[in-house]
Amino acid sequence: MRTRVEMASEKEASRGLEWQVTVPGGSSVRLETDSVHTEAGWRMHRLASALRSKVFDFASKVRKIAADDPRKVVHCMKVGLALALVSVFYYTRPLYDGVGGAAMWAVMTVVVVFEFTVGGSLYKGLNRATATLSAGSVAFGIHWLAIKSGRTADHIILGASVFLLSSAATFSKFIPTIKARFDYGVTIFILTFNLVAVSSYRVEKLLALAQWRFCTITIGFCICLTVSVVICPVWAGEELHRLVMRNMEKLADSLEESVAEYLEEEGGVDCNQKLAHKSQGYKCVLNSKSSEDSLANLARWEPSHGCFSFQHPWRRYLEVGAAMRQCAYCIESLDSCINSENQQPPDSVKKHLAKVYAKVTTESSKVLKELASSFRSMRKPSSIDLLVEDMKNTADELQNALGSLPQEATSLIVETLPLITAASLLIEVSVRVEGVVHAVKEITALPCFKPTDGEELKAQNKALSTVA
Amino acid sequence: MRTRVEMASEKEASRGLEWQVTVPGGSSVRLETDSVHTEAGWRMHRLASALRSKVFDFASKVRKIAADDPRKVVHCMKVGLALALVSVFYYTRPLYDGVGGAAMWAVMTVVVVFEFTVGGSLYKGLNRATATLSAGSVAFGIHWLAIKSGRTADHIILGASVFLLSSAATFSKFIPTIKARFDYGVTIFILTFNLVAVSSYRVEKLLALAQWRFCTITIGFCICLTVSVVICPVWAGEELHRLVMRNMEKLADSLEESVAEYLEEEGGVDCNQKLAHKSQGYKCVLNSKSSEDSLANLARWEPSHGCFSFQHPWRRYLEVGAAMRQCAYCIESLDSCINSENQQPPDSVKKHLAKVYAKVTTESSKVLKELASSFRSMRKPSSIDLLVEDMKNTADELQNALGSLPQEATSLIVETLPLITAASLLIEVSVRVEGVVHAVKEITALPCFKPTDGEELKAQNKALSTVA
Repeated sequence: MRTRVEMASEKEASRGLEWQVTVPGGSSVRLETDSVHTEAGWRMHRLASALRSKVFDFASKVRKIAADDPRKVVHCMKVGLALALVSVFYYTRPLYDGVGGAAMWAVMTVVVVFEFTVGGSLYKGLNRATATLSAGSVAFGIHWLAIKSGRTADHIILGASVFLLSSAATFSKFIPTIKARFDYGVTIFILTFNLVAVSSYRVEKLLALAQWRFCTITIGFCICLTVSVVICPVWAGEELHRLVMRNMEKLADSLEESVAEYLEEEGGVDCNQKLAHKSQGYKCVLNSKSSEDSLANLARWEPSHGCFSFQHPWRRYLEVGAAMRQCAYCIESLDSCINSENQQPPDSVKKHLAKVYAKVTTESSKVLKELASSFRSMRKPSSIDLLVEDMKNTADELQNALGSLPQEATSLIVETLPLITAASLLIEVSVRVEGVVHAVKEITALPCFKPTDGEELKAQNKALSTVA
Repeated sequence: MRTRVEMASEKEASRGLEWQVTVPGGSSVRLETDSVHTEAGWRMHRLASALRSKVFDFASKVRKIAADDPRKVVHCMKVGLALALVSVFYYTRPLYDGVGGAAMWAVMTVVVVFEFTVGGSLYKGLNRATATLSAGSVAFGIHWLAIKSGRTADHIILGASVFLLSSAATFSKFIPTIKARFDYGVTIFILTFNLVAVSSYRVEKLLALAQWRFCTITIGFCICLTVSVVICPVWAGEELHRLVMRNMEKLADSLEESVAEYLEEEGGVDCNQKLAHKSQGYKCVLNSKSSEDSLANLARWEPSHGCFSFQHPWRRYLEVGAAMRQCAYCIESLDSCINSENQQPPDSVKKHLAKVYAKVTTESSKVLKELASSFRSMRKPSSIDLLVEDMKNTADELQNALGSLPQEATSLIVETLPLITAASLLIEVSVRVEGVVHAVKEITALPCFKPTDGEELKAQNKALSTVA
């Protein structure tokens, strides 16, 4: 697309300025300009083509975002639909009269509460409803007290309560647990409290207003939640599960790539070419802490869905994430060690280590892939203990290979340093992969992970043998 | 405080259930209960003391947050003050009549826009104002079009525009640049557009409403901004500058601690004791990416303040942050390498390396500290080139020391592996510290960093000599 435009603009430039305008009728007219290249014309032409290329860039970026995750497009249409549904309250007279001007709050609720994940919408919706209700009650009480205590005390009580409660509520946002779970609720609490407390309405009118407001917020929230859950729901919990799973796969790939590099270097493949092929998946793992944290916070609000129950221990996923980042730190050092071009290790040493080195990465990567596939199929990783055992054994082998380096290596220690360091780091990586296994086991021990066919068979056999 | 309560509850337990109740008058009465330990009584007692200890825990947590950063307390009081000021609009009759029911929007603006940093308030306030204005205009145009096109087309045009514009605006939030700069603005755009477009008011009333709303939002924003800037302002830019500076210091400390461990191990100091003393500052560096990103996003909105101009290149701080994280990854691996208790390296090897190893860490840490102190004093780091040179030289020394390991070491390579790996990683750390220096130099080259006295003197001398 892009190149055709560029070719077209080149053509245009070569035959002078020639503008083609499509008129609403469908036909197009050609406006021949004088062939003298005036400077202003050139500038406009350049501006137009720059603008055009920017628009195309933007369009291709948008297309890429949509293609990478079509659920984003669906989400946008869901928001549009929910808002269109809410606007029914304005058009349908009977409903409009019932809910009154407060219907505005329904629109506001949908706009503010509708989030990408169901957990996000639930978090915001429940926070909003609870905060509105509690702040309304408190404000109503204070309002009543102020009215009872006469004209002057009235102002003092209201002013002081606005100052104190707003300050206290704002401070509560600095407490990490409240920040994580009720940040939005606290904001709405302050807002509602202030709106009700300082409004100079009579108490009866206030009650009616509060009732309306709460009612419309509930309507908005229900519409929002229905659309969010019924049409292609995106569950924060499932997203977290998948994110952790993909990160395991990325770590495994990174490990395999690093060994490929290690071996390819021997073959003398061009370094730049190699780097271009690298996905460096471990970098995604390094940067996914904040996504994991926020998804875990939102997943807590979600009801039982798919294989996950309401009380699914999402916190454990954060532990797995932390263990994987520990791995990724080490792989990062390993990666830079392999890519350091300072020293040329002697070939004999390289050959001595290459095979067992490759074995350790393969085994470590197998362990991670087994964990990922267990997450994917929601089955217990039956062969994980064997794989871990294999990984440990190969790590020991590597250790032994380091111990029995040829004499040449030990005398040229500076030259072999990157090799030795890489091997040592790889052993550390395998230890940290064990840490990941340990963290994952606490999740796969849950009943939502089905035993594999083999285990089922074993259990059946046992049952049969006890019967016999 | 805590222990006194615990002691008291123990005493109470020892003499049976005895309740002390403070009555409003100020005196206290004692309620003697029967000395038979009824189960219900015990349970209540346990519940009460558990509750009491929870309250005390919470109070001490709150006290800690306030003591760690008193600006948080000031911020809360600022919010309270701004809201109290806004409530003046409700109490003062002339103003109230002028602004009408729309004064609600002023309260809402203050609650939603007031953020901890000036940049945060500016970002939200400007986004809110711009979005309200633009969405209002668009909605007004569509409303006018709908009214002109008759009774049936009216509904279709409004419904379609609500659906399409809301969907498109929601999608724009998925584009990273828009998300970073205009996330809040897009939300307000959708909100305002929907409120105006679907309201079934006549055009004249709409215009008046829009005018009111915009006016009150501006009033709220101005109050908010004035309080935020005048009373102890917290600038996001300054926070970012300090965060990066503190992280440099933490990295330097981590390096020094790691060498202390390396040397102490030789002295046979208890390992647990050692670990208790560790601050592990590098872990803060590993986790500060999201803070840095959000501060840099907010700092962009801030006007010139202190030493920082409006166009201060805050992006560069993110590069420094990334370079420091690179360092921290390596230090993490180094740390685990030093703490690995698998192998006991021969003492002779340790002695051979210890001195030069300590030198490299000291020099690397010096470089980082010089950068931090340059950030603190806003002066160019005059001696940085010399320090980097020293660091490189000592790293070369360490490399050479590795090359000339005693025969014993090369034959016991498995035992000396952690030592060799640590040394190799330390050399890599020094390379990455150079990366930090490189990233920082782009910031310290800015005119807001003053030359040091020495350089001033040199410049003066040069000027004098040219005059002479």
